[in-house]
Amino acid sequence: MGEMMEDRINMSHGAGGITTAALIDEVFKEAFGNEYLNTMADSTVVPGADRIAVTTDSFVIRPLFYKGGDIGRLAVCGTVNDLLMSGAKPLYITAGYILEEGMDISDLKRVTASMADAAAEAGVQIVAGDTKVVPPSDREDPGVIINTAGVGSVREGISIGPENIKPGDSVILSGDLGDHHAAILGARMGIANEISSDTAPLCEMIDRLMNSGITVHAMRDVTRGGLATVLNEMSDRAGLHIRIEETQIPVDPGVREFAGLLGLDPLYMGNEGKCVIILPAEAALRALEIIRGSRYGERAALIGSVTEDGAGVTVRTAIGGLRSVGPLAGEGLPRIC
Amino acid sequence: MGEMMEDRINMSHGAGGITTAALIDEVFKEAFGNEYLNTMADSTVVPGADRIAVTTDSFVIRPLFYKGGDIGRLAVCGTVNDLLMSGAKPLYITAGYILEEGMDISDLKRVTASMADAAAEAGVQIVAGDTKVVPPSDREDPGVIINTAGVGSVREGISIGPENIKPGDSVILSGDLGDHHAAILGARMGIANEISSDTAPLCEMIDRLMNSGITVHAMRDVTRGGLATVLNEMSDRAGLHIRIEETQIPVDPGVREFAGLLGLDPLYMGNEGKCVIILPAEAALRALEIIRGSRYGERAALIGSVTEDGAGVTVRTAIGGLRSVGPLAGEGLPRIC
Repeated sequence: MGEMMEDRINMSHGAGGITTAALIDEVFKEAFGNEYLNTMADSTVVPGADRIAVTTDSFVIRPLFYKGGDIGRLAVCGTVNDLLMSGAKPLYITAGYILEEGMDISDLKRVTASMADAAAEAGVQIVAGDTKVVPPSDREDPGVIINTAGVGSVREGISIGPENIKPGDSVILSGDLGDHHAAILGARMGIANEISSDTAPLCEMIDRLMNSGITVHAMRDVTRGGLATVLNEMSDRAGLHIRIEETQIPVDPGVREFAGLLGLDPLYMGNEGKCVIILPAEAALRALEIIRGSRYGERAALIGSVTEDGAGVTVRTAIGGLRSVGPLAGEGLPRIC
Repeated sequence: MGEMMEDRINMSHGAGGITTAALIDEVFKEAFGNEYLNTMADSTVVPGADRIAVTTDSFVIRPLFYKGGDIGRLAVCGTVNDLLMSGAKPLYITAGYILEEGMDISDLKRVTASMADAAAEAGVQIVAGDTKVVPPSDREDPGVIINTAGVGSVREGISIGPENIKPGDSVILSGDLGDHHAAILGARMGIANEISSDTAPLCEMIDRLMNSGITVHAMRDVTRGGLATVLNEMSDRAGLHIRIEETQIPVDPGVREFAGLLGLDPLYMGNEGKCVIILPAEAALRALEIIRGSRYGERAALIGSVTEDGAGVTVRTAIGGLRSVGPLAGEGLPRIC
């Protein structure tokens, strides 16, 4: 640690002068250094593509570190997964840090190291950054909020979105529901359990699927609001009904028990390394095989199908009844991303 | 205001369910609605370019509204100007909102309306967004932090950066120093004065300059840390000395008086609608004419030149002495962006 650096964040780290420069050198360039970021220009010029996908997401999760991940890994994976869901190849990430006065700089270094690892796994470069300092909330330990924006390239002819969904399409879920939500809620409530978050970049899975020649109609990652909210949004935009089979939805037994204990429904619990894929029924089994053979996709399942019964989402329960499920209403605590 | 909406932000506005969707519909789509944003996808697919410029900036300024601008206008202009400084044509903006619990939704609507106006003036589209809610700091009224990332296209053959700076180059400043800093500091200290922030997008000015055929070596917008810090960073990266003439640096008389009263040096006071341009001396007068004929450039001045005397920045004072000026050290309060 250089002479300009204290061991905690103070307001001068956000002032744009010598102390900000020291923070950038000793923390951010140390973790992320690459030919683009090192120019330290107002903006970074990089190779583009004819069609690009653009996204942004801010991460306000507490605690900063949790079983299976941390805010840094999450900030990379969340944005990478958003790009993938448009059929884009993730290329670049920007990182905006809102540091709270009093934050441990050693914690910040753990976060940036984790971001660098996740970016390497996802094959993206962190090409631009920004740092600000704000007073902390008195309700929580001082930490960091991270915004990541992402840019990806979209191949000619690729068109993925809920407007492409057709009656008869199949619905695939890439793995267990609720792991991330349960891990964060457990950590916040001080409940000791073995549940680990699924925070992960889905690059390999989506890349293999897109390269297989299989037509994908729509994809969404399952985050805030859970599968029920995501399927409702897709159904709404498609103007088509989605029916899912409760018995086909994979949930880890530990997560199921935890959810039962707290009266939570896994359908509304968020993940950070899962997605739902809607595609023609005739391609569903081949797609499922590809997804199951990919990293983070071993537990993928065919969970339902699309019908013409008007927008809405219905679950066929284990005992054979039909239950209509709406999007998340109310609090949806805790902040899980 | 729809039935889902309260008049203040609460945690459910960040939960990703029905209340978040109502906020997006009634505030963000209302202000920004365009063909791309309306897809409400995880990421937005837009036309790209062979070379793109990418940047990010977070805005934590308080107060949210100030004479001459507000956090929304600032969040658009800051990122647009960062893109322009790389010689890029700004195309797309993403907007990440960190809302503090308790914020007035009517204030948020004023902010988004102002962002829409600034985006229209700058000719950029807001194509992706995100909303989170966090507990507020007890030290300040609940407000909003805005991250904007930007993407622009860079024409073939354009290369702008401090590595291009040559001995003998001229240094142009596009207008008065310190207006933004003085306006914010005055507002925070409750000092009544007539100083108005210069928050503005420099698109017209830079567009005209780039279209003139004049070669520009390097550009930077003058923000946090002020002109002294920006010139020191350029000098460092170029490995060349920059000498400026104190008498040539434009400062509004009201700002000069305000700075004098508080013992502030305008060289370290930030702006949000000014830039410094370094280019071959033979093109300087023509460039100056173009800049002065552009919106926000009427007060532009030729303020100095580049020499081979090793990195560093020197000011020749009004009485003819030479003073070395370093980058900003210490606090650099208040948060001006």
